[in-house]
Amino acid sequence: MTDRIIRFLRDRRPSTPCVVVDLDRVEENYRALAGALPNSRIFYAVKANPGAPVLKRLADLGSCFDTASVPEIEMALAAGATPDRISFGNTIKKQGDIARAYQLGVRLYAYDSVEELEKIAASAPGSKVFCRILTDGAGAEWPLSRKFGCVPEMAQDLLVKAADFGLQPVGVSFHVGSQQCNVEAWDGALAQAAAIFRHCEANGIELSLVNLGGGFPTRYRNGVPTAEIYGRAIDASLKRHFGNHMPDTIIEPGRGMVGDAGIIESEVVLVARKSYDADERPWVYLDVGKFGGLAETMDESIRYQISTPHDGGEDQPVIIAGPTCDSADVLYEKNVYRLPTALKAGDRVRILSTGAYTTSYSAVNFNGFAPLAAHYI
Amino acid sequence: MTDRIIRFLRDRRPSTPCVVVDLDRVEENYRALAGALPNSRIFYAVKANPGAPVLKRLADLGSCFDTASVPEIEMALAAGATPDRISFGNTIKKQGDIARAYQLGVRLYAYDSVEELEKIAASAPGSKVFCRILTDGAGAEWPLSRKFGCVPEMAQDLLVKAADFGLQPVGVSFHVGSQQCNVEAWDGALAQAAAIFRHCEANGIELSLVNLGGGFPTRYRNGVPTAEIYGRAIDASLKRHFGNHMPDTIIEPGRGMVGDAGIIESEVVLVARKSYDADERPWVYLDVGKFGGLAETMDESIRYQISTPHDGGEDQPVIIAGPTCDSADVLYEKNVYRLPTALKAGDRVRILSTGAYTTSYSAVNFNGFAPLAAHYI
Repeated sequence: MTDRIIRFLRDRRPSTPCVVVDLDRVEENYRALAGALPNSRIFYAVKANPGAPVLKRLADLGSCFDTASVPEIEMALAAGATPDRISFGNTIKKQGDIARAYQLGVRLYAYDSVEELEKIAASAPGSKVFCRILTDGAGAEWPLSRKFGCVPEMAQDLLVKAADFGLQPVGVSFHVGSQQCNVEAWDGALAQAAAIFRHCEANGIELSLVNLGGGFPTRYRNGVPTAEIYGRAIDASLKRHFGNHMPDTIIEPGRGMVGDAGIIESEVVLVARKSYDADERPWVYLDVGKFGGLAETMDESIRYQISTPHDGGEDQPVIIAGPTCDSADVLYEKNVYRLPTALKAGDRVRILSTGAYTTSYSAVNFNGFAPLAAHYI
Repeated sequence: MTDRIIRFLRDRRPSTPCVVVDLDRVEENYRALAGALPNSRIFYAVKANPGAPVLKRLADLGSCFDTASVPEIEMALAAGATPDRISFGNTIKKQGDIARAYQLGVRLYAYDSVEELEKIAASAPGSKVFCRILTDGAGAEWPLSRKFGCVPEMAQDLLVKAADFGLQPVGVSFHVGSQQCNVEAWDGALAQAAAIFRHCEANGIELSLVNLGGGFPTRYRNGVPTAEIYGRAIDASLKRHFGNHMPDTIIEPGRGMVGDAGIIESEVVLVARKSYDADERPWVYLDVGKFGGLAETMDESIRYQISTPHDGGEDQPVIIAGPTCDSADVLYEKNVYRLPTALKAGDRVRILSTGAYTTSYSAVNFNGFAPLAAHYI
């Protein structure tokens, strides 16, 4: 919780629910990541928070941008990034979107299948491409499916094929899973990447780039290792697997860049018991829920810290839910949260580290509620 | 799939993804429900699809409206409904929103706790209120949590208390769970409602209304009983539990009103294999996913039927996912879907019965993608 956000909330009393994002904290996070991984270029994952002021601040700092769609490319350009600082990192792209990105000057594309490679070859001729490999995501708090990445044996074939298609195969990418709290998680994927580099070299293809992806965590209820600790672990793994032939590297922080730069302020709508059973936890209903910006509470994956005006007083275990008429809009029931017994309707609570994956996830008007308002300060 | 939608898609070739909603089908569904439950007033659950043309058509037909928020009340009024045809059915309401609803003329409110009752008494004095009781939702395909409703013993006390607060306690509501495929599901809740009526009568409170809620299903991959069958089962239960003192009843169909009136047209973005293991299912990526309107695929709860231009040819088991960079944006993996082997990027597919809980659920701009476009015909 930054002093600037606290002052803003105190002085401005914005309508709830809203998220307030401290751009200075974003800058601090950028500098910490840049310092921890001095040899890596930073491609901010725009999807984490595409707010124009966030993109502008990062563009001014020299950040590059990992984008998922043509609108995200356009937002990065509008923020002042040149096309050579933009990667089209989604492995699932429409043919027409690749053509449009190429027209906008983007020359760096992700892929993980021969079908996607053919589309890139057709619509973004001569571009640089990197192939995403599958990792297991063990240790990550947000689930990583097999949706992205191919097996390493396929990746090496696809990199050779990229050259056949007239593209420039530059390297390999992977993602160790979002909110990755195991600093060693990169090691296995880097071993695989190094093996792919060797295979390609034997086939006359010189790779130069390892895209280390994102995964850098933000602090929720539990502490997380610092950027420096991640940096040292990744550096050690790079040396272990690449020896004297160190590749260029890029990282794609999203949550680690903006997560702890934002706070959602929300109003308690109702605190209620639904039975006379004293063992049954009361329900606390907030004016923000799963469809209003807290989508990452799906399966209670991300467990945010919540502060209230009554902290320090007597507390009790509660169930926390959102304001919609949807029975699935329950935030925390399996995970037991304790909130002050004095908490009541009308109180304002703060949901910490909500700068990432909140604004853009929120539903357009589910139950008639407006999307989450955002203030960038 | 209605002929009008098929013609619209053929002649207009709208950009994908989009949903096309046939208002005539909405009208047919309204008439079928009205015919099946001739003694019930219909309060359409606006949250299922708040599209202005849907509300307008239903208002013209004489429908009432179950609303979840002040904006939904305003939408119903804008569609032509008078305030006496609007219920504020959310049991979780801000004090200021109750006051605003009252100012707009709404005089019918739901509640399930003493705290909410106090808010209604303060901001909507003299209004009619009904108390929601908890049901278990067995047989429903969309999960029903304990988020709404109190135990019957509490409900009867809260109804007596409503009179003490100067409100008009009119009855009881419950919800048997969305996409409820067991036509007998209403019976247990009606037995509880009747017991509450008797208890209140003994305490000098004459209740008159049972709000039977929603739950009426729409057809997805499997057939569902007709409205008539639901109507007969509910009517038999009402007679069984209320005998000669039949209450007024209302129903709140949402999915059952608009579900099968809509079809999403989506483009295949990519069909890809990620390994050389022939047993591994290929991935089919569509341009619509969990964050673009198909939120109800959460935990694969709602299993939509998908039609393709190659239906009837050879097919294969696939995994189906959305277009975003989010690993959680997978639609069907545990449930095995088979799609034609000939399916390829650029093909258009149709996702059937997607008129409910799609447009308003879609994320405001996650990954830069626009919310689901809607065409009402």
